Amino acid sequence: MSLITRAEQALSTHFEQAAGVGGPPRLLAAMRHAVFSGGARIRPQLCMAVAIACGDEAPQLTNAAAVSLELMHCASLVHDDMPAFDNADTRRGRPTVHKAFSEPLALLTGDALIVMAYRVMLQGAGPHPERLAALMDNLTLGVGLPHGIVAGQAWECETSADLGQYQRAKTGALFVSATCAGALSCGQRPEPWAPLGAYLGEAYQVADDIRDVIADAASLGKPVGQDALHARPSSAQALGLDGAIAHFDHLIDQAASSIPACSCRDMLRQLVQLEAERLVPKALCEGYFKTHAPAHAGGVGLTH
Amino acid sequence: MSLITRAEQALSTHFEQAAGVGGPPRLLAAMRHAVFSGGARIRPQLCMAVAIACGDEAPQLTNAAAVSLELMHCASLVHDDMPAFDNADTRRGRPTVHKAFSEPLALLTGDALIVMAYRVMLQGAGPHPERLAALMDNLTLGVGLPHGIVAGQAWECETSADLGQYQRAKTGALFVSATCAGALSCGQRPEPWAPLGAYLGEAYQVADDIRDVIADAASLGKPVGQDALHARPSSAQALGLDGAIAHFDHLIDQAASSIPACSCRDMLRQLVQLEAERLVPKALCEGYFKTHAPAHAGGVGLTH
Repeated sequence: MSLITRAEQALSTHFEQAAGVGGPPRLLAAMRHAVFSGGARIRPQLCMAVAIACGDEAPQLTNAAAVSLELMHCASLVHDDMPAFDNADTRRGRPTVHKAFSEPLALLTGDALIVMAYRVMLQGAGPHPERLAALMDNLTLGVGLPHGIVAGQAWECETSADLGQYQRAKTGALFVSATCAGALSCGQRPEPWAPLGAYLGEAYQVADDIRDVIADAASLGKPVGQDALHARPSSAQALGLDGAIAHFDHLIDQAASSIPACSCRDMLRQLVQLEAERLVPKALCEGYFKTHAPAHAGGVGLTH
Repeated sequence: MSLITRAEQALSTHFEQAAGVGGPPRLLAAMRHAVFSGGARIRPQLCMAVAIACGDEAPQLTNAAAVSLELMHCASLVHDDMPAFDNADTRRGRPTVHKAFSEPLALLTGDALIVMAYRVMLQGAGPHPERLAALMDNLTLGVGLPHGIVAGQAWECETSADLGQYQRAKTGALFVSATCAGALSCGQRPEPWAPLGAYLGEAYQVADDIRDVIADAASLGKPVGQDALHARPSSAQALGLDGAIAHFDHLIDQAASSIPACSCRDMLRQLVQLEAERLVPKALCEGYFKTHAPAHAGGVGLTH
């Protein structure tokens, strides 16, 4: 089974189990809208890939951990899209939750998804109770204070923020949780896998900044030019587009190099390279530079 | 040490420990504003009172459980006050979080407090890891789907909702979690303590409905008349003010009667009666009926 199929199946199963019976129907519909909308499922796939590299000896626990990460990610997207933040009308080419359902329901959807993430983790830990605390702690550090994704989002509300710190928290933290959860769910030490998550997470944020400049709204499925519009810290603003692309390539190389020795090392490296191409397609960069040539002196090494 | 002092001290200690070092300063300030603002600390006190009745043999774990309940409660207040819901400018006589800090920070404050509640629980479970899963599950059921306080809030967004179901979820669920957490933190079965939480929670919601009608904004510390304004399900609307007060008295009697046999039974019953008087002061009811006599036929038995 492919990782994406495993991730989708685990999401469906755990979502229904954790939702229980008798909840408010519109809240449930809004939560489903937020979760089952064609996301790339990067975080759960990353968790599962690391677990496979660690022997995959507790696949049900790995699946629960993977789902809990994706639910946290979906919660953050719902809240980020709201008028108080990005005020985005579309996400993945569909109306955002507050547009499709209402602002109150979008607010509650995010809250309910955060809590559901913990419920999934609790329900999945049955056969391995001794691993629960470490997995819960790992999940919590990826989301909350002091350096999780909620803190990352909050750096946008400070008068000054370090770009690296902002990116590490806003996106990197949950990627680190993802690779660490893969190891923890197999009863192994998470530390060797943290750098892979950190480099990929930073690369993912840089890719987001790049696409916010060079993509069009149709291919991105959401509005573009949001960083400049909201005066948010952005690699493309700080380093220039050329610099951001070079930085992205460097991060992908570091991610690939960080993978610990294991039987799946080559497969994982290949996955990282494929993901890099999906995140910042060469064709998209080349197309952009062709049409925006005068604004950019010199060539750009699109090595990824 | 009084329960309120114990609750305040535990909140201060666990908040700082769970916040860690290096988080965004304005988010932290907004979270402190939300948590340390003169709340009555009913849920943590209830948790602690039940734990004392159960022997109080793991006070640190009880304190962590009590704090996690209060953080969830504070998170729900911050989000409920936001423009998407009550659009309240004041809470406990002070500016609400979105008024004092901004809407984005209020949104993130709620999210961060939910996650912090789990972190506090994880940090507090050290000496009793075998009790962690049950306490986490208990907390999660009080907040999330299908019947926790987030679900309760979401019933306001449905076209039709059963008043009892709405009230049980919106307020009752976290009160049930509070009494159950007191027993669970002592390694005891929670079931005997669930009815006390359920009756008190429902009484608390009915009291809120009553005060929304008869109190003035100054004494309440927040706007009044909100239920009618937002067309929310309300006991005072459904039963009339007299009926709501009678229902409140009945719930308080049931709460007191439900307390299981233990050495602290009389003390707990007294606490319930004192809390009832604090929630719906006789003087306030009598004052209201004096000035609004024509609208209300017959006397009202203020027996609580």
